[in-house]
Amino acid sequence: MTATPSPEAFREAKTQGNERLRKGGSFFESFFALDTAAYEPGALPVSVKELLGLMVSVMKDCEECVYHHLKRCDEEGVSRNQVLEALQIALAGAGSVTVPLLRRAVTFMEKLPNLGEGEHEA
Amino acid sequence: MTATPSPEAFREAKTQGNERLRKGGSFFESFFALDTAAYEPGALPVSVKELLGLMVSVMKDCEECVYHHLKRCDEEGVSRNQVLEALQIALAGAGSVTVPLLRRAVTFMEKLPNLGEGEHEA
Amino acid sequence: MTATPSPEAFREAKTQGNERLRKGGSFFESFFALDTAAYEPGALPVSVKELLGLMVSVMKDCEECVYHHLKRCDEEGVSRNQVLEALQIALAGAGSVTVPLLRRAVTFMEKLPNLGEGEHEA
Amino acid sequence: MTATPSPEAFREAKTQGNERLRKGGSFFESFFALDTAAYEPGALPVSVKELLGLMVSVMKDCEECVYHHLKRCDEEGVSRNQVLEALQIALAGAGSVTVPLLRRAVTFMEKLPNLGEGEHEA
Amino acid sequence: MTATPSPEAFREAKTQGNERLRKGGSFFESFFALDTAAYEPGALPVSVKELLGLMVSVMKDCEECVYHHLKRCDEEGVSRNQVLEALQIALAGAGSVTVPLLRRAVTFMEKLPNLGEGEHEA
Amino acid sequence: MTATPSPEAFREAKTQGNERLRKGGSFFESFFALDTAAYEPGALPVSVKELLGLMVSVMKDCEECVYHHLKRCDEEGVSRNQVLEALQIALAGAGSVTVPLLRRAVTFMEKLPNLGEGEHEA
Repeated sequence: MTATPSPEAFREAKTQGNERLRKGGSFFESFFALDTAAYEPGALPVSVKELLGLMVSVMKDCEECVYHHLKRCDEEGVSRNQVLEALQIALAGAGSVTVPLLRRAVTFMEKLPNLGEGEHEA
Repeated sequence: MTATPSPEAFREAKTQGNERLRKGGSFFESFFALDTAAYEPGALPVSVKELLGLMVSVMKDCEECVYHHLKRCDEEGVSRNQVLEALQIALAGAGSVTVPLLRRAVTFMEKLPNLGEGEHEA
Repeated sequence: MTATPSPEAFREAKTQGNERLRKGGSFFESFFALDTAAYEPGALPVSVKELLGLMVSVMKDCEECVYHHLKRCDEEGVSRNQVLEALQIALAGAGSVTVPLLRRAVTFMEKLPNLGEGEHEA
Repeated sequence: MTATPSPEAFREAKTQGNERLRKGGSFFESFFALDTAAYEPGALPVSVKELLGLMVSVMKDCEECVYHHLKRCDEEGVSRNQVLEALQIALAGAGSVTVPLLRRAVTFMEKLPNLGEGEHEA
Repeated sequence: MTATPSPEAFREAKTQGNERLRKGGSFFESFFALDTAAYEPGALPVSVKELLGLMVSVMKDCEECVYHHLKRCDEEGVSRNQVLEALQIALAGAGSVTVPLLRRAVTFMEKLPNLGEGEHEA
Repeated sequence: MTATPSPEAFREAKTQGNERLRKGGSFFESFFALDTAAYEPGALPVSVKELLGLMVSVMKDCEECVYHHLKRCDEEGVSRNQVLEALQIALAGAGSVTVPLLRRAVTFMEKLPNLGEGEHEA
């Protein structure tokens, strides 16, 4: 029920927490490196991998992960309609209990340069 | 750890987010219609269906869904004790990790005309 | 992907396992007693409580719990259409990933005296 | 711990169960239609949508859904390496508890014409 | 995305909510007693049991439960490195979707007398 | 509802599946290595780490993971009563939906040299 954060505020809080984890042992650093490697270009382009990561995030009800992958989709040129179609698959697959997180997702999208629908522009 | 919202504030934030989803394609509208249809009176009365929806919501840790179904239970004449018995089944079934959400549920109930225990009345 | 068990086979395997847990300490016995108490008649009739337990079971993907509550629904006079409406709420709420368990549920129902649709009756 | 089913056996059991659900009311038919619609070609190609559905299925630990989407990926020309990269994202995202289902996935892939690695061919 | 609470603020909100649940029937009181009993010293020392409870809490994404068990670990003399190793097992087991909660955990630990790393002291 | 496997049968199926994953790319090998590293002795002894892994497994409803960690507990000298106390914490934390998996756990324990209660011996 909290306000959707700005992309900048979201990034700052995340960076600080990750620093604390990294200081907690090399295991965390190794895990982060492996997680990052999973999203590098390969047989699948990065844009598709970020959509897959978005699915993981919605399924596991991870609000901060959703914002991360939406931001990455925005950077990788995924279109608004492509994200919306991915969210439809999430909704069909995991049902109406995902709706509150989907509401936050589309609200966060408005703050991104490419994924918003420019609803305030008219 | 955020404050439990008022029913009015809760409803406004939900309406705005749902509008954004609806603009995201007819799929969302169709899903909402199907979800609504599941709660229409049939072989089971609406009051029982709302209690079933409350169970779904607690099990999936969906705070906003819990508030929605508590509000609907309140409107449909479900009694405070009936809701509490449903929450007991949730607690026995899904264990102490549900307790924080149950605490929010009983706090939200205080703000509803019929489901509160009127604890402030003396 | 295993065959749906007969109600008798299901009950026997469950009883044996519960015995092993009970021998594991009084804690388990106490928990079972508390869980049983949640389903005793109160402000809600037992039939409704069993439907609530069915929701808990589907949401947590607990196949054996689903069979247990279907059997109890059958004993408590819940009708086939009432169970089907409850399953519709589960499907709308938790999406198509619940479908395999719902398939097993309706298959198990065929083996129960009251909840089956008598599909073999010509 | 059961044996990985053949694609044919898997399909037959699924069809029979779905028929039982469809006879349970038009709601189920409507939900199935909506779920199917989410996978139709749009801004995203079907092949990507099936990979997204595979993610949903692994995240929700739905073995039968995993087999369904692997089969659809196979039909839509997704390559073995593309599926493996998707499974890597699932593993990084949801951790080692997904490994048993990933083992079943790669075993099932061996039975599909295009997704197997032809391990028996030498 | 909310701020990590102080241990005192966290405890107060919890106490008030638990009181409301306790007034909701003796069932809740009985459940709380059973849950408490599971953490009493036995074949395992309390410190290990609190670490086990921490695992349960991270796995079920229960932020308030995580804070409770971290506080109890702090009181029972569990070391910072022991907690960090437990969190590593959680991360390996349940993947990167746990990272936001782990970030909150290490942030909360800074507020505890023994589990913090004293990062502000230099 | 399938029979609890023998430890030998369980290990063989697991080894074969893991081989298939390892052939799927170095990512899987790297992940397995990291997961293994989380269980190496450190500030916590291996026996406690295996109990923590058991909690992860029960919470995520991972039957094969439960068998793995029970086997490792047996090898590391964890006592039957210690495992049972851990299972009690799991039951209190995650409720009666865990009972079917706990039944399988205690049944599997009977097949292990140290964790069984020798129930057939008299």
